[in-house]
Amino acid sequence: MTTQELLIKAKEAKGALSTITAEDIDRALLLMADLLVQHTDSILSANALDLDAARGTISEVMLDRLLLTPERIAGMADGIRQVASLPSPLGRVLKHHERGDGLVIERISVALGVVAIIYESRPNVTSDAAALALKSGNVCVLRCGKEAHRSAAAIVEALREGLKKAGLPEDMVLLIEDTTRQSANELMTADGYVDLLIPRGGKGLISACVRNATVPCIQTGTGICHIYVDSAADQDMALNIIENAKCSRPSVCNAEEVLVVAEDIAGEFLPKLRKRLVDDRAEHPVELRLDEKAAKIIDGTPAGENDFDTEFLDYILAVKVVKDVEEAIAHINRHSTGHSEAIITENAEAAEKFTRAIDSSSVYVNASTRFTDGGEFGLGCEMGISTQKLHARGPMGLEELNTYKYIIKGKGHIR
Amino acid sequence: MTTQELLIKAKEAKGALSTITAEDIDRALLLMADLLVQHTDSILSANALDLDAARGTISEVMLDRLLLTPERIAGMADGIRQVASLPSPLGRVLKHHERGDGLVIERISVALGVVAIIYESRPNVTSDAAALALKSGNVCVLRCGKEAHRSAAAIVEALREGLKKAGLPEDMVLLIEDTTRQSANELMTADGYVDLLIPRGGKGLISACVRNATVPCIQTGTGICHIYVDSAADQDMALNIIENAKCSRPSVCNAEEVLVVAEDIAGEFLPKLRKRLVDDRAEHPVELRLDEKAAKIIDGTPAGENDFDTEFLDYILAVKVVKDVEEAIAHINRHSTGHSEAIITENAEAAEKFTRAIDSSSVYVNASTRFTDGGEFGLGCEMGISTQKLHARGPMGLEELNTYKYIIKGKGHIR
Repeated sequence: MTTQELLIKAKEAKGALSTITAEDIDRALLLMADLLVQHTDSILSANALDLDAARGTISEVMLDRLLLTPERIAGMADGIRQVASLPSPLGRVLKHHERGDGLVIERISVALGVVAIIYESRPNVTSDAAALALKSGNVCVLRCGKEAHRSAAAIVEALREGLKKAGLPEDMVLLIEDTTRQSANELMTADGYVDLLIPRGGKGLISACVRNATVPCIQTGTGICHIYVDSAADQDMALNIIENAKCSRPSVCNAEEVLVVAEDIAGEFLPKLRKRLVDDRAEHPVELRLDEKAAKIIDGTPAGENDFDTEFLDYILAVKVVKDVEEAIAHINRHSTGHSEAIITENAEAAEKFTRAIDSSSVYVNASTRFTDGGEFGLGCEMGISTQKLHARGPMGLEELNTYKYIIKGKGHIR
Repeated sequence: MTTQELLIKAKEAKGALSTITAEDIDRALLLMADLLVQHTDSILSANALDLDAARGTISEVMLDRLLLTPERIAGMADGIRQVASLPSPLGRVLKHHERGDGLVIERISVALGVVAIIYESRPNVTSDAAALALKSGNVCVLRCGKEAHRSAAAIVEALREGLKKAGLPEDMVLLIEDTTRQSANELMTADGYVDLLIPRGGKGLISACVRNATVPCIQTGTGICHIYVDSAADQDMALNIIENAKCSRPSVCNAEEVLVVAEDIAGEFLPKLRKRLVDDRAEHPVELRLDEKAAKIIDGTPAGENDFDTEFLDYILAVKVVKDVEEAIAHINRHSTGHSEAIITENAEAAEKFTRAIDSSSVYVNASTRFTDGGEFGLGCEMGISTQKLHARGPMGLEELNTYKYIIKGKGHIR
């Protein structure tokens, strides 16, 4: 099936959405979870083919991301069941306005329609994204990277069987066959077919979407996250938070990439930082890339031109010394990707200044940037982390996969 | 000043936003209103030059739109005062989540940053848009069409004097000097400078934005609005609503352009429609453009290929006969621009089906589409009517000119 044919099917399935209830959706999700487990063998066989093809071409870390096991499939099914158990975002009355003349105006949450997701090599994204899109009332079009495509196809087959068993249109979940750049481009310009496109992937994919997309699009994920250690910081707390934000999982978007330190305390703090992140870490010591001022205080790699604009996703931390919170804010707002930033301070005024002025989705006081996550924020789930300001900002849950419409009821009202 | 220089000034002014309070903004708005009235003479002189230049090149209707009088300027000032009196959308706690471990996560409404508006020949949009953008905490970049540019410049001068008097940065309101397509294109691609672009204008401008914009953009205004007269309609009510929706102000986006009639009643209803919209209207009779079935019942112009996809903005109505509400829904969802549609029916089931299935910003039961308006909807004001689904749908008020950010407060929390 060509991408265009598939999009026509998605649009047809969308036509059925208006008669489907939240209960229908939950019933389908539970069946989809069951079918996923029942299809374990065929999914593992497909995954074995993906792994064979990928071995040697991608890193061990990426191979592990690609690997499925019976336990991981059971985990994916549990993920779907958990999404089913969340309250439906559909049909909420967001505003109610009754005019003096009796005209009743309500703003009601409704599905967006067709939500398309471009993602890369993690096969579990297939079921996660489909479950979230479906729970929020949408038809889901998936475009998986080529490394995981056989696995994704086997997963989607199970999910569609669940939809069918629930009496819903199978085409509410569709996987694009073409894994070349061509299909990504077709999605970006599928005006009238795609109501929302979510690119989940690297910088190249995101910026291609910004440049080329004519369909509505939400940028996700790129995180050059900063932590600013204020002159009034609790320095032990700062060390704990920095080690957590940098080292607990360096490959994720909410990991810290840049440390900004107030010059008043840099002489005292930076040697402690070096001890904590370099000398005390036998496994995975952090490479510090130091600006000129920091390099006068501790040893490390001199920071290059791009080190304050790079999402390292590795055990590397750029370090900059600034005069005060104002200079920290100016630096961060110039170099950040709008994801997550933190200030470590005991000074309430500095904290207030920082949280007001920093123009990012999530601004922390005395906590690790690693909390930027739908689950951690209490959304129950997550479709990605928006780094844009329109529609959704930060972790996107079910509500962010809805739009609203006004329904206005009159008795012959004219204006 | 080049557009690029102006955008740098806008970005600098945005840096000051975080220290400005809602009270500062209201005080500035009231001063801006006063200054506008005080500058009446200079604004009228500038407007006279605009009118002289435009005469002969644009229609009488457009000339009237361009014309300012002391009363109209006073009205613009009152508009600003009214915006000042609305509650501030800033700093609302949209969500509050305290975790078991004491981490407090709040979602807070904040300004978008720099809001740019491209508009055409109505000088009053200058003060309206500036007041709304400012009230919602944003820096406002205005790009006015060439016909009204001298008037807009005189208005902006008054507004900036008000800002200065209030002690706020004058550059919170900026007017782009260049009125050629070049400046519109520069705005569309001003990544990092423009946080939201609102094109207010014709189809050409909107579709240029969809194609070319790399900055976040909200499509506004194009309205191919439908009214469906169901077989269970109160036909007198239908006639009243249709005449209102079509004729009360045909040049606006919420006017009806297409009538869809159930075939069961078409034989009875269409002759009444013709009498009401054509024969009984000595002034401005409506031209009916009839599909084949309608043409068998009443006289009119045979509908051409594009008549069901045209925003006439004139005393013209396309008429189509359909089998039932399902066919009406299918036709409307295929041809509508997602603005406003109505069903006229006494049948609750048909009404429910229609409101659920129609994929438009505003869906009416037994009321005129002409109500789609920020003021009529109780928003107190309006920046335009969004026909897209992301971020804002339907009339945009102050809240829609905000985004949110998460502010997370911990005591050394790590994940």
